[in-house]
Amino acid sequence: MADLYRILPGFGDVEAAAARLGGWSVRTPLLEAHKLGARLGYRLFVKAECLQRTGSFKFRGAFNRLSAMSEAERRRGVVAFSSGNHAQGVACAAELLGIRAAIVMPADAPRIKIENTRGYGAEVVLYDRITQSREDIADRLVAERGATLIRPFDDPLIVAGQGTTAIEAIEDAATLGIAFDVLAAPASGGGLIAGCALAGAALSPKTRVYTVEPAGLDDHARSLRAGHRVGHAPDAHSICDALQATMPGEITFAINRRLLAGGLVVSDDEVRAAMRVAFTELKLVLEPSGAAALAAALAGRIPGPPSAVCVIASGGNVDAAFFTQVLGD
Amino acid sequence: MADLYRILPGFGDVEAAAARLGGWSVRTPLLEAHKLGARLGYRLFVKAECLQRTGSFKFRGAFNRLSAMSEAERRRGVVAFSSGNHAQGVACAAELLGIRAAIVMPADAPRIKIENTRGYGAEVVLYDRITQSREDIADRLVAERGATLIRPFDDPLIVAGQGTTAIEAIEDAATLGIAFDVLAAPASGGGLIAGCALAGAALSPKTRVYTVEPAGLDDHARSLRAGHRVGHAPDAHSICDALQATMPGEITFAINRRLLAGGLVVSDDEVRAAMRVAFTELKLVLEPSGAAALAAALAGRIPGPPSAVCVIASGGNVDAAFFTQVLGD
Repeated sequence: MADLYRILPGFGDVEAAAARLGGWSVRTPLLEAHKLGARLGYRLFVKAECLQRTGSFKFRGAFNRLSAMSEAERRRGVVAFSSGNHAQGVACAAELLGIRAAIVMPADAPRIKIENTRGYGAEVVLYDRITQSREDIADRLVAERGATLIRPFDDPLIVAGQGTTAIEAIEDAATLGIAFDVLAAPASGGGLIAGCALAGAALSPKTRVYTVEPAGLDDHARSLRAGHRVGHAPDAHSICDALQATMPGEITFAINRRLLAGGLVVSDDEVRAAMRVAFTELKLVLEPSGAAALAAALAGRIPGPPSAVCVIASGGNVDAAFFTQVLGD
Repeated sequence: MADLYRILPGFGDVEAAAARLGGWSVRTPLLEAHKLGARLGYRLFVKAECLQRTGSFKFRGAFNRLSAMSEAERRRGVVAFSSGNHAQGVACAAELLGIRAAIVMPADAPRIKIENTRGYGAEVVLYDRITQSREDIADRLVAERGATLIRPFDDPLIVAGQGTTAIEAIEDAATLGIAFDVLAAPASGGGLIAGCALAGAALSPKTRVYTVEPAGLDDHARSLRAGHRVGHAPDAHSICDALQATMPGEITFAINRRLLAGGLVVSDDEVRAAMRVAFTELKLVLEPSGAAALAAALAGRIPGPPSAVCVIASGGNVDAAFFTQVLGD
């Protein structure tokens, strides 16, 4: 991977990704939350990536990454490890491009994510998070098959693909005559926010871009304050199953430390409340991680006072049983 | 109302409504359901009107109707009766236009619909469906205040407003190079389907347009077969609380008998299954009535074989308790 580190992606890579994704990814709607915005005192827009193929933004990066593979690489297949959304993104992109995919997933991942990954025709290899190393399992598959490992975030093509989300949001806002003061998105490894920051810097330079993380898993917020990568508390946990990466990526942080305005933090209870509001007022199904940025807005955490804010609702892959529990809170 | 009967709305009225709604209504996304379509053997598109202002298409007709009122009429306010979605549509349009609204609603309407109607600043007058007549209550308010009664469907401007839904869907499909073989939408009084049929006849004349109704409440299907308006079975009931009108409207049926291809029927269990699929695969919150057309597709009821089908997901105003019950089925 050393060669990749030499070249950080730039906005040109995000534009190239947008061209590759054209006709494949969904141009998800930018929805204005009129009532919520009136309550908060600014115009609030939700970029509904839960409506993306596979139910999360991860399809964008995965498709962009797999599209760049040579014919010879494609024949040997891809391997990925993921608790769920990257898994589905890679599996779906692989199916569309006719590439064999093996996905290493924790046995306790949300059932819907495991089933959907299989539904895209991928081979799912389950592992025990306590006793097994997903990296070891993936490395073995890569070695055995000559397959390409598709990293979840620390890859220039993945970052560039995720950044297409912000290109669309900024373009759609511009047609309304609006430039966002703030764009906020959840961060795990930081691929989505890094790609969005590249798009923001190029297309909407006055927009301040923030990560949103669950309390305890706030390694981006800590790293941005420290000026270098630090991990989150080792015993931290959250209902946000897609935001568990222990430390920002190297590539992603190299972008984020330069371009982000800061890191916001939300509690699990605030995330649950945002999931309920998404159900009641927006008619969107959001998974916990997908509701984190909305939660930051609803909890009054957006620095400002802003006049127009975009929150990325990054995914909607949540089991019915858990969703039911949240609605009943 | 006799003067209204003389003039049925035409496509020009739908186009005029689209111009009036510009900048006020949401241009809701046309979402392709890739996985469901692959399973069904045709391209399936969902027009997500649950993402409309107020959570249903009813805002379109209401805003179009209220926009046409004179200044003198506006000062005297509006009155409507509705189990919920028309109520919210009128209340929201009235708030945006600065018009006082009184809405007569059954006391057993979904709580979310009552609360939201109040949330738009409307006065809500609750009545008992067994012992009271909503028409009498509304007539009294109209007489007392000189207010304008906003009918839920049998009004040319309401029909024209609802038809803007189909203009958008047909335009968005055209940008993909697609013309729908079939467009299906739920019907209660028939305003949505009549407006869509006008748009379809003008913009996509080969598209066959069908109503979808719950079993037992299939007065459109029966009326289309009979060639004249007949009511549904008096003791019929369904979970589709927004599809309870006992007979097609006069204006709407005059259009529908001429332009529709027929009426489809779904069971409550099929509607529940469609709500679950919308949750799992589309990440959309649909109320029972809003899931009826999707249910027809999933149950294999679309006549064909079609190659491209649009189902209108007409609304998403459903209480959390009921939604939870459906997810647990």
